[in-house]
Amino acid sequence: MDAVNLDAMLARFAEHWSPKKIAQINAYDVRIVKVRGEFTWHRHADTDEFFLVLDGRLTIQMRDGNVVLAPRELFVVPRGVEHCPRADTETAVLLFQPGTVINTGDAGGELAAQVEELA
Amino acid sequence: MDAVNLDAMLARFAEHWSPKKIAQINAYDVRIVKVRGEFTWHRHADTDEFFLVLDGRLTIQMRDGNVVLAPRELFVVPRGVEHCPRADTETAVLLFQPGTVINTGDAGGELAAQVEELA
Repeated sequence: MDAVNLDAMLARFAEHWSPKKIAQINAYDVRIVKVRGEFTWHRHADTDEFFLVLDGRLTIQMRDGNVVLAPRELFVVPRGVEHCPRADTETAVLLFQPGTVINTGDAGGELAAQVEELA
Repeated sequence: MDAVNLDAMLARFAEHWSPKKIAQINAYDVRIVKVRGEFTWHRHADTDEFFLVLDGRLTIQMRDGNVVLAPRELFVVPRGVEHCPRADTETAVLLFQPGTVINTGDAGGELAAQVEELA
């Protein structure tokens, strides 16, 4: 049983908007994702969504206003709340979410990503 | 709706081994805790336990060996596995766990802490 080093895991991939599973707690995944640019507006009807910024800066756009996250800042988008993440520079984010969650929620589309597991 | 800054939250308390809730995702809590010294051997029969070190260094002692975590390193203690965290210097840890979890698991005792919520 070994520690999981976030920087070593982040070094293993380059693509954006494609979360990687790095650990599991019960039925929840810990995932990391690199992002840049704007994602797609979507919502998750059945789950809250947790974001912790590791590097860079993440803007979570919502219809009622935006939240901007720097490293060591986190935010939970409540279930059902429409949101659209955006990053002007490359940004790394840690996510906690049920293992069933798809990144694009109700929106589907080309950005919907299979979650690869980094062993 | 505001970002939660981990350093601002860590600045709001000093006591050791007393997790503070800083966010909720569905029925799970995100908690932060400051630790120093040795905790108590215990296990959680019904849940895995997630540790992410924010500052300092955490040794998770287990009967089959130890895992040492530096900042930006994480580990999941599987359900049922006896463990005893230890930190030689002050260490800050982020926990992700069901909202029902008690820090001392099956061991109970004086170190069992009520989880205060930092608003």
